[in-house]
Amino acid sequence: MAQMFYNYTIFVFFSLLIMHTLAYPKKLDANKPCKRFVLYYHDILYDGTNAANATSATVTNHTMLGNFEHGMLVVFDDPVTKDHHLLSPPVARAQGFYFYDTKTEYNAWFSYTLIFNSTEHKGTINIMGADLMGEKTRDFSVVGGTGDFFMTRGIVTIRTDNVQGFFYFRLEMDIKLYECY
Amino acid sequence: MAQMFYNYTIFVFFSLLIMHTLAYPKKLDANKPCKRFVLYYHDILYDGTNAANATSATVTNHTMLGNFEHGMLVVFDDPVTKDHHLLSPPVARAQGFYFYDTKTEYNAWFSYTLIFNSTEHKGTINIMGADLMGEKTRDFSVVGGTGDFFMTRGIVTIRTDNVQGFFYFRLEMDIKLYECY
Amino acid sequence: MAQMFYNYTIFVFFSLLIMHTLAYPKKLDANKPCKRFVLYYHDILYDGTNAANATSATVTNHTMLGNFEHGMLVVFDDPVTKDHHLLSPPVARAQGFYFYDTKTEYNAWFSYTLIFNSTEHKGTINIMGADLMGEKTRDFSVVGGTGDFFMTRGIVTIRTDNVQGFFYFRLEMDIKLYECY
Repeated sequence: MAQMFYNYTIFVFFSLLIMHTLAYPKKLDANKPCKRFVLYYHDILYDGTNAANATSATVTNHTMLGNFEHGMLVVFDDPVTKDHHLLSPPVARAQGFYFYDTKTEYNAWFSYTLIFNSTEHKGTINIMGADLMGEKTRDFSVVGGTGDFFMTRGIVTIRTDNVQGFFYFRLEMDIKLYECY
Repeated sequence: MAQMFYNYTIFVFFSLLIMHTLAYPKKLDANKPCKRFVLYYHDILYDGTNAANATSATVTNHTMLGNFEHGMLVVFDDPVTKDHHLLSPPVARAQGFYFYDTKTEYNAWFSYTLIFNSTEHKGTINIMGADLMGEKTRDFSVVGGTGDFFMTRGIVTIRTDNVQGFFYFRLEMDIKLYECY
Repeated sequence: MAQMFYNYTIFVFFSLLIMHTLAYPKKLDANKPCKRFVLYYHDILYDGTNAANATSATVTNHTMLGNFEHGMLVVFDDPVTKDHHLLSPPVARAQGFYFYDTKTEYNAWFSYTLIFNSTEHKGTINIMGADLMGEKTRDFSVVGGTGDFFMTRGIVTIRTDNVQGFFYFRLEMDIKLYECY
């Protein structure tokens, strides 16, 4: 009798666990990424004279909405480094675009690919999101990945690390991946 | 003997359940979003005179392909409301872009971020997809989210709710999230 | 006693399995897509005279960075076929954009929607990624889907199948979906 009760207890316990697993198949905890690393993104905008050093250029002029470059679209192929020195050896490239989109303040919108091609990592991470420049940190979405980052998803928390006039800025990217395969 | 048979039955039952769970770890049902809400997107295009009210502006002129504004790209920071009144208090902003892409009819392509910053919701939802304007409803993909919408995915079913000439349109967005954390 | 030991063994076995399931809820194997098909993408760029045949057009001129069309943005509504003949009946459309983004070589960046509207498939697949044209094959991310491709994710491995001067190219798209519902 005690034995049957014991079996019954096991049965109920596992049933609940499995029903839970089926109903909520995936638990992600924002504090527990399966992979995390910090990288720095350097954008040197073409100013008409710096073609040798520039890594990005303006593709469309701003519109007439407000004074915050609304509509100015920039295409970039930017170096990405492990520390915040522009001249450190890049560990990745960031290829994509951003544009300013707000009438009353500086806000940008980004979509780009981080491209890794080193002994450490080969593959890409695809990213998009709104860069609400008035916030201290902003979150982009990692919407996919390839190669070493096959099918990944996650969050990139960015922080403006440095701005030098209109033609250089540096973003710290705190890359937190929650799906790793 | 009966006891062993009983144990064996439990064993097989759980084995099948667990194999099923491992093989098909996630079941999504299009009719059962984990979160759903309807919002309205208002786009007031800059016409050269309405800078005070406009929420979007044309960044590139249409190309010479067809008569349906092919290649016209619009950057927006649009108010998003709970009902379909333009002047209702916005519950979110939609920042991003769309462009017309078809030679023989009006079709657009969107990519944008819904930005929530209220007591009810803080965070963003990232969206992209084709707006096949000839269809009564069209589906975009929710490809990621941050903050209260951490790591979400889903579908946005859009419907043109109102068009006033060339410079105002309103979309109903039926936002269905299938991954909620 | 033996019975208790047997029950205990079952208990430990299932506990480990379930803990494993909860901790790593989803196993994706790059070699085992749940759906796979190959399609061909045809891009006929407008050259000023071919409006009848063209399926894409340049929206922004290249910038002054390098000699590889940096900043040239193209909007397309391209036919997609099952074999590599341009004139085969299209099984889908690809609507979206690409732009060239590199100073020292040809690299492009794509974001687009595959639109299926046939008896075989109805729905869309949303795709983005870097087209590193120097590589024999490149991987884009499938970041979402709708209709028959509800909530899908995956990888599109592309290969340049044909280039004819500046105004026609064909990509083979090996579409591998790893999340099917």
